[in-house]
Amino acid sequence: MADAAVRPKKPATNKRTPAGGAPTAAHSAAETADARIDVDAVTDLLLGTWADTRREAREMIKDPAFWRVDGMPMAEHRERVLSQLHLLVQHGGSQRAFPKEYGGLDDNGANLAGFMELVLADPSLQIKSGVQWGLFGSAVYQLGTEKHHAEWLPGIIDLTIPGAFAMTETGHGSDVAAIGTTATYDPETEEFVIHTPFRGAWKDYLGNAALHGKAATVFAQLITGGVNYGVHCFFVPLRDDEGNFLPGIGGEDDGVKGGLNGIDNGRLHFDQVRVPRFNLLDRYGQVAADGSYTSDIDSPGRRFFTMLGALVQGRVSLDGAATTGTALALYIALTYANQRRQFDSGAGTDEIVLLDYGKHQRRLLPLLAQNYAQFFSNDELLKKFDDVFSGRGDTPEAREDLETLAAALKPLSTWNALSTIQEAREACGGSGFLAENRMVGLHQDLDVYVTFEGDNNVLLQLVGKRLLSDYAKQFKGKDAAALARYAVGHTAGKVFHGAGLRQLGQAVTDLGSTARSVELGLRADQQQELLTERVQQMVADVAGALRPASKLSPGEAAKVFNLHQAELIEAARAHGELLQWEAFTDGLDRVEDAGTRQVLTWLRDLFGLHLIEKHLAWYLIHGRLSTQRAAAVSRYIDRLTARLRPHAQDLVDAYGFAPEHVRAPIASGAEQARQDEARDYYAALHASGDAPVSEKSLKKR
Amino acid sequence: MADAAVRPKKPATNKRTPAGGAPTAAHSAAETADARIDVDAVTDLLLGTWADTRREAREMIKDPAFWRVDGMPMAEHRERVLSQLHLLVQHGGSQRAFPKEYGGLDDNGANLAGFMELVLADPSLQIKSGVQWGLFGSAVYQLGTEKHHAEWLPGIIDLTIPGAFAMTETGHGSDVAAIGTTATYDPETEEFVIHTPFRGAWKDYLGNAALHGKAATVFAQLITGGVNYGVHCFFVPLRDDEGNFLPGIGGEDDGVKGGLNGIDNGRLHFDQVRVPRFNLLDRYGQVAADGSYTSDIDSPGRRFFTMLGALVQGRVSLDGAATTGTALALYIALTYANQRRQFDSGAGTDEIVLLDYGKHQRRLLPLLAQNYAQFFSNDELLKKFDDVFSGRGDTPEAREDLETLAAALKPLSTWNALSTIQEAREACGGSGFLAENRMVGLHQDLDVYVTFEGDNNVLLQLVGKRLLSDYAKQFKGKDAAALARYAVGHTAGKVFHGAGLRQLGQAVTDLGSTARSVELGLRADQQQELLTERVQQMVADVAGALRPASKLSPGEAAKVFNLHQAELIEAARAHGELLQWEAFTDGLDRVEDAGTRQVLTWLRDLFGLHLIEKHLAWYLIHGRLSTQRAAAVSRYIDRLTARLRPHAQDLVDAYGFAPEHVRAPIASGAEQARQDEARDYYAALHASGDAPVSEKSLKKR
Repeated sequence: MADAAVRPKKPATNKRTPAGGAPTAAHSAAETADARIDVDAVTDLLLGTWADTRREAREMIKDPAFWRVDGMPMAEHRERVLSQLHLLVQHGGSQRAFPKEYGGLDDNGANLAGFMELVLADPSLQIKSGVQWGLFGSAVYQLGTEKHHAEWLPGIIDLTIPGAFAMTETGHGSDVAAIGTTATYDPETEEFVIHTPFRGAWKDYLGNAALHGKAATVFAQLITGGVNYGVHCFFVPLRDDEGNFLPGIGGEDDGVKGGLNGIDNGRLHFDQVRVPRFNLLDRYGQVAADGSYTSDIDSPGRRFFTMLGALVQGRVSLDGAATTGTALALYIALTYANQRRQFDSGAGTDEIVLLDYGKHQRRLLPLLAQNYAQFFSNDELLKKFDDVFSGRGDTPEAREDLETLAAALKPLSTWNALSTIQEAREACGGSGFLAENRMVGLHQDLDVYVTFEGDNNVLLQLVGKRLLSDYAKQFKGKDAAALARYAVGHTAGKVFHGAGLRQLGQAVTDLGSTARSVELGLRADQQQELLTERVQQMVADVAGALRPASKLSPGEAAKVFNLHQAELIEAARAHGELLQWEAFTDGLDRVEDAGTRQVLTWLRDLFGLHLIEKHLAWYLIHGRLSTQRAAAVSRYIDRLTARLRPHAQDLVDAYGFAPEHVRAPIASGAEQARQDEARDYYAALHASGDAPVSEKSLKKR
Repeated sequence: MADAAVRPKKPATNKRTPAGGAPTAAHSAAETADARIDVDAVTDLLLGTWADTRREAREMIKDPAFWRVDGMPMAEHRERVLSQLHLLVQHGGSQRAFPKEYGGLDDNGANLAGFMELVLADPSLQIKSGVQWGLFGSAVYQLGTEKHHAEWLPGIIDLTIPGAFAMTETGHGSDVAAIGTTATYDPETEEFVIHTPFRGAWKDYLGNAALHGKAATVFAQLITGGVNYGVHCFFVPLRDDEGNFLPGIGGEDDGVKGGLNGIDNGRLHFDQVRVPRFNLLDRYGQVAADGSYTSDIDSPGRRFFTMLGALVQGRVSLDGAATTGTALALYIALTYANQRRQFDSGAGTDEIVLLDYGKHQRRLLPLLAQNYAQFFSNDELLKKFDDVFSGRGDTPEAREDLETLAAALKPLSTWNALSTIQEAREACGGSGFLAENRMVGLHQDLDVYVTFEGDNNVLLQLVGKRLLSDYAKQFKGKDAAALARYAVGHTAGKVFHGAGLRQLGQAVTDLGSTARSVELGLRADQQQELLTERVQQMVADVAGALRPASKLSPGEAAKVFNLHQAELIEAARAHGELLQWEAFTDGLDRVEDAGTRQVLTWLRDLFGLHLIEKHLAWYLIHGRLSTQRAAAVSRYIDRLTARLRPHAQDLVDAYGFAPEHVRAPIASGAEQARQDEARDYYAALHASGDAPVSEKSLKKR
């Protein structure tokens, strides 16, 4: 089956009528004259700034040794993924992020771009790599100093030290500041004593903890001289060369999970485990031999967030991997929908190709538009990340912007991944439920992306708080006209690039005015106005609602905040959606080919209107759209999906996936062959004169 | 772990303050005086008409032999589930639906009620039982005649004949009428020749086909005398006693699936396989020895739908199983949310219990309300089913109503299952992703419920067409005032009971009038008006849009229909939601205890407002709600969720699950014990005087 599934298909070219009989040809004379996209150029656009690295990674994972094997028992799957990590090392896949003196390439953007693509091979491979090099390795690199790099980075890069990233505890997930594990300094022996004082303080859900980890970067409350200096990170050896836990260390296997079963997640506990003072990763806080504590960052809160911020790459990486995984599901479902036929129209014609159904277009094409937007916003995020981590643009403000941006985008792309993959799987019916067609496996593996590396709701709440605090700053001693400036201050130009923002064409107006014809649809500037105003208004509303809280006791203030928690999260989501929309729009500016630009503009419009439709009640309640105009939104979406339908295959071909990445029999052309065979059979039967007549036709006589 | 997971918890009683420290106690003095539900009485209410059978089934599956084992390799899981089916036979679980002369109990409602509960043990067990007795066995019973019953039912009931239900083909899922398999009568030998003429005609996704099936009920186009009489069902032996395919029969294993891997789904193909004339299940169509065809039902279309309708029980059963599976996920997530703490409020207090967060209430409690509604509507569906299949109320109209009702409810409950289980899993963070906590397994297994036994969108389209045709009938030669009558003609009273419908209190009015205070909220009659009017208006709108199509060619008419396909499906969904709401409301009438009635009324209101909020844009665009009133809907939901919060544990306790049904460590009380241990540790540390001071407090000095 695998062989059939990966057999080469037509190369992705810009032919008007693709080979292989795929029904992407124009449906009417008018459409034939329509624009078509330049598929290869769009692939370049989607692969973005680090396209070369992505292509390199995609080439590497054409090797079946990297592929997920459905139904493989957990124990075997875990060993397979470990061996894949060694293969990655051989291919140089683990070096990109690390400094040159340890064999690295010091290329942060490329590093994440390369890792994201591994999701196409096996998400367990992507995440286990992320544990080893993105979390464990990064903790040593980003939180440690040169002495630590020299000691451990070579072994981390070449995987002689597989490691766990021991931050999360059973009792504390996203609230890292409250973890219970302690690291108490003993000046007598110049050691830290690592200890988990109760069951809730056990480290949990850690990749590499159940089996393979030889060491861990353990986050613990640093206590010295009777003072708790807050969460710091320590390098703690876990197992001896035979794989046995070292004295004082124990653990449990997390067992079977909903997905990612190629990773050996587990729990760790520490009973007064002593590590040398050397093992404190002390870039942001140092303990001298006598136990005295020093740090360049005076504020404990800012120090904590600086340390956590150094690990932002996980979220950047998940945003990209979720986007690529979603693209794969869309490729499979739309390719199948372009070949599969079901039900005749009642007009005695052939059975209808699924994608010709209005409902089928409606359920899949807006998700395709959304996924395109995510490719553009992820590339912006990646550029921002590279800018900060390369040191070129490394300021505290830029770091804070990067963290907010990652916290805004990762929730949206990971949730969208689950809903899109699910819709794609349902759109393929029973065949979508077979593991061989990939979508159920993608859903299972990507499920946890929405709650790890920061629970999505917690991340959006962080973004919301940032929006609120910026809002408050803006108004400190200023007049009400600052509101408009505030709004544009949060567009993509500002957030992605820190300056040079796009000015709105005009002030807020009722877009429902009859002066503008509904038939013109909702143009780009109107989409932007609507999306921007929504963020602005929602933040202003929450800020207004919370204002009385400043005069209350902390307990009462918390209650008021709690009443508006859901709204604040919604505001943050609206902010993320705006960023995605603007990234897509900025991407359009880089398109030269007129046909491509036309089709992608429709797709961007579909994304914008899809967002507006999703929040239509809000626009109506807040008087931003008249009912007449609101009703037009859905009709315009219908028109756009119909217009985009002939381009659907081109648009998913532009993802640039090779058969070795897709591997789903239903998207291999097998369905087209079955349809052709069935139709040939009936044609031949008809021609032979042996075809039975239908009872119905008999009754009519 | 399993032992801890199933350790007995407090019995579900109606105590004001439950034992075990679960924080369901009232939060304020006012709340203490509030109503509380009578948990046992609510359990009776939810278990419905066949409560005794459900309790019997739940008692049986307390035996660990029935439980799903996470991570079990597919081959082993398949054998385990087969052995569970034999266990079921020993417990008499397979007899209820069948006639007394073959050892059955002739009790259709009880039969389905019992099977639904199996989802708590292992959904693979529920579905494989459904394949054997609900589909394969039912086909023989419902489509065959006495001679077939005598020949095969005993072996089907006692599982000496495990069988597959061979309807679906690779090339045709929900469009059964178009299947390619043929059964051509040969008068020479008095045999039918079963043949799959091309790959797309292979039977696919069939439980029992890959391994265990000794026979199959095969659906094929019946051809005799050169005439195709449409789809009929044939009993076809598949394998010999050694498990080898009989001559002419072949197949493939469907392999690993997204879930339900305890079932051996597979493909079957037939190469001119001959079966005796006897093997035509001929209740609705007979072929004489000479090949002449007879049927009591003259219309080929009506005959086809009658045969398919005889198999409606699968959909009824899925509606119930999805509802029960959803309840389990809600039990787990809400119990955990009532014990788990995360983040302090910033006011120096204890960390906050998850369910005290506004967002957490908002994400889970409306889904709880929805699930309650489904219990009530499923019981109505089950009663209707029992009425028809017992023969008490078996008229063509009642059958058609039953099929429409099942087609309306199954999509909603199965989709709700997936979205609710997913939300529940996310609400439990990382622990929700562990297989031991059940939710990921439930999602994986129930995933395919949304596309099998009729794809949900296809089913809703059927419902939509029924609504349209009823609408057309209503207006034939009548005045416009019939519109209002049409609307009430589709309320639950009519649909569930065929008569005696609830009259709307008053005519359609603008509910946004200032005369009614927003503060009064949206009362029951207003909820009903809004939900009912929406169905009416949507159907009327689609009917209006399709009216011109009657004058077009079939091809052009199909195009017009296609433009409105998505809207028609939405109208059908609105209809199903109304039915659920009305079933819940009818259920309230049966509640005597005032406290219970109060709390359940809030819950029903939450469900109603949740639906209205979901469709708020529609209500605004169509002038059914003023913007002021629309804005109040969300605020009222916030108030309701806060009001229901203290009752959440009681409401999920009322599902009546025993620890052997739940089996999730996080809902076993282990989390409460961890929280208590951590707080005791910190209290003792504080009391000892050895607690480190925080750096922050040091800086303040």
